[in-house]
Amino acid sequence: MKLLSFVHQGRETWGAVVGDSVVDLGRAFPQHASLADYIAADGHKQAAQHVEGLAPVAKLADITYLPVIPRPEKIVCAVRNYMDHHQEVLAAGMQRELSEQPPIFLRVWRSQCAHEQPIVRPRVSESLDWEGELAVIIGRGGRDIAEADAFDHVAGYACYNDGSVREWQFHAKQIASGKNFESTGGFGPWMVTADEIAPGRELKLETRLNGEVVQSSHTGHMIFSIPKLISYASTIFTLVPGDVIATGTPAGVGWSKKPPRFMKPGDVCEVEIEGIGVLRNPIVQQA
Amino acid sequence: MKLLSFVHQGRETWGAVVGDSVVDLGRAFPQHASLADYIAADGHKQAAQHVEGLAPVAKLADITYLPVIPRPEKIVCAVRNYMDHHQEVLAAGMQRELSEQPPIFLRVWRSQCAHEQPIVRPRVSESLDWEGELAVIIGRGGRDIAEADAFDHVAGYACYNDGSVREWQFHAKQIASGKNFESTGGFGPWMVTADEIAPGRELKLETRLNGEVVQSSHTGHMIFSIPKLISYASTIFTLVPGDVIATGTPAGVGWSKKPPRFMKPGDVCEVEIEGIGVLRNPIVQQA
Repeated sequence: MKLLSFVHQGRETWGAVVGDSVVDLGRAFPQHASLADYIAADGHKQAAQHVEGLAPVAKLADITYLPVIPRPEKIVCAVRNYMDHHQEVLAAGMQRELSEQPPIFLRVWRSQCAHEQPIVRPRVSESLDWEGELAVIIGRGGRDIAEADAFDHVAGYACYNDGSVREWQFHAKQIASGKNFESTGGFGPWMVTADEIAPGRELKLETRLNGEVVQSSHTGHMIFSIPKLISYASTIFTLVPGDVIATGTPAGVGWSKKPPRFMKPGDVCEVEIEGIGVLRNPIVQQA
Repeated sequence: MKLLSFVHQGRETWGAVVGDSVVDLGRAFPQHASLADYIAADGHKQAAQHVEGLAPVAKLADITYLPVIPRPEKIVCAVRNYMDHHQEVLAAGMQRELSEQPPIFLRVWRSQCAHEQPIVRPRVSESLDWEGELAVIIGRGGRDIAEADAFDHVAGYACYNDGSVREWQFHAKQIASGKNFESTGGFGPWMVTADEIAPGRELKLETRLNGEVVQSSHTGHMIFSIPKLISYASTIFTLVPGDVIATGTPAGVGWSKKPPRFMKPGDVCEVEIEGIGVLRNPIVQQA
């Protein structure tokens, strides 16, 4: 099933994709205030039954999307987690070593934006770059989760664009500042529930800028696996339903290109992941 | 005024310190669900009037404290923001340069713990270190706040212990992992409203381990000022009422001592800041 958050008749809600339309599960199951709450109650495992008999409320083409999880408690992002990206970083002259444990940073939910909503280039820099990524949405929470059990904690998968303001990312060793500009992290259009993606399946990942392929790789190039990322993060803090783990980007980011290439107002950036869908965001300038 | 969050008769609430007792403003002003909500409504500026005529509900000694803001939307932390700490880092053999812009990272609210509540040493490492810090609590939110206006956005100040698991902090260049272990960030006991602390006033800051002074400095050693930190953070994202900016720690952290010294179960760590109070946390081992 494809589950999503959206706005319907001015009201924030969540639901499921059926064909080219959307079913409003938020209205049918008001005991769950959000998709994250529905996931916390294991609703996503029965979504196929839950949509039965419900009439669609709108065509997909007519809804206003929200980020799949609009306000995750935590967004944990992996740094340089694709071997092909690591190699392009070295080729670009950066001195970086592979670490024994996953390098991570945090995004705040305010940095997210939905499918078809703009990624906003801030006034302070023109170095806005794409990073197509596979996002994991946590289902069952927990602390100190063993790698062997990690896939049991995954509710589903989505496309993420870990939009990065490179100049600010490189202000200091800590990259959080360049990774948290408001409305720079595309997240959508929906999550595909975990039952449709076999654990560890290699998924093709492609990022396109104005239709031109700029990243083309697959999730098999990950350095630290999804179970390792979940286990590592859960050693630090309790993961809760709706938490997001952005698993890192493959080769082909803009700043590693010669000459470097960035997103500018008027561009359209797409992240497509096999079995999941296409996340599309126009770029606009901060007002 | 001193404002705080606490548990009273099994209910999470918030209020003010009057003498050696606590007034339950959460019960008197139920339209504000939390101290952050009260701050959002500018209530903290009228707290002195609001407590008038209200009977205290408990002695301070009898309450269960919560972190001053239990669940801030954002906790923005400055890295190496005291010149004396920067110098001890160099003396310890680390190669670090002063950056032109403030290095920052993020903590999640789950990493916080209240006054008199335990700081938890995780099972995975014995390298749990203290970092006494001045925390700024945001009052009026905003984006792109000018330095000249920054103090208008401060609701108050509190003590923070940016507890750090050094081994994990140094897993990679990104230090977020060592800075986010559950219940490692002491935040309390209360916030002192901004009217009581003149903008830019130098405050003595002292951290004690089992009564022994381990950090002794003052906020005049900050490299990036509070207005600069607020302005920088607000360039990235919209600050909202109740957001926390932890302004960095001075010299005297445990890992820079020869030999390194860490907090262990049974220890008690205190952070005292002039004009604010004493934050005290016992150390326990993760169960």
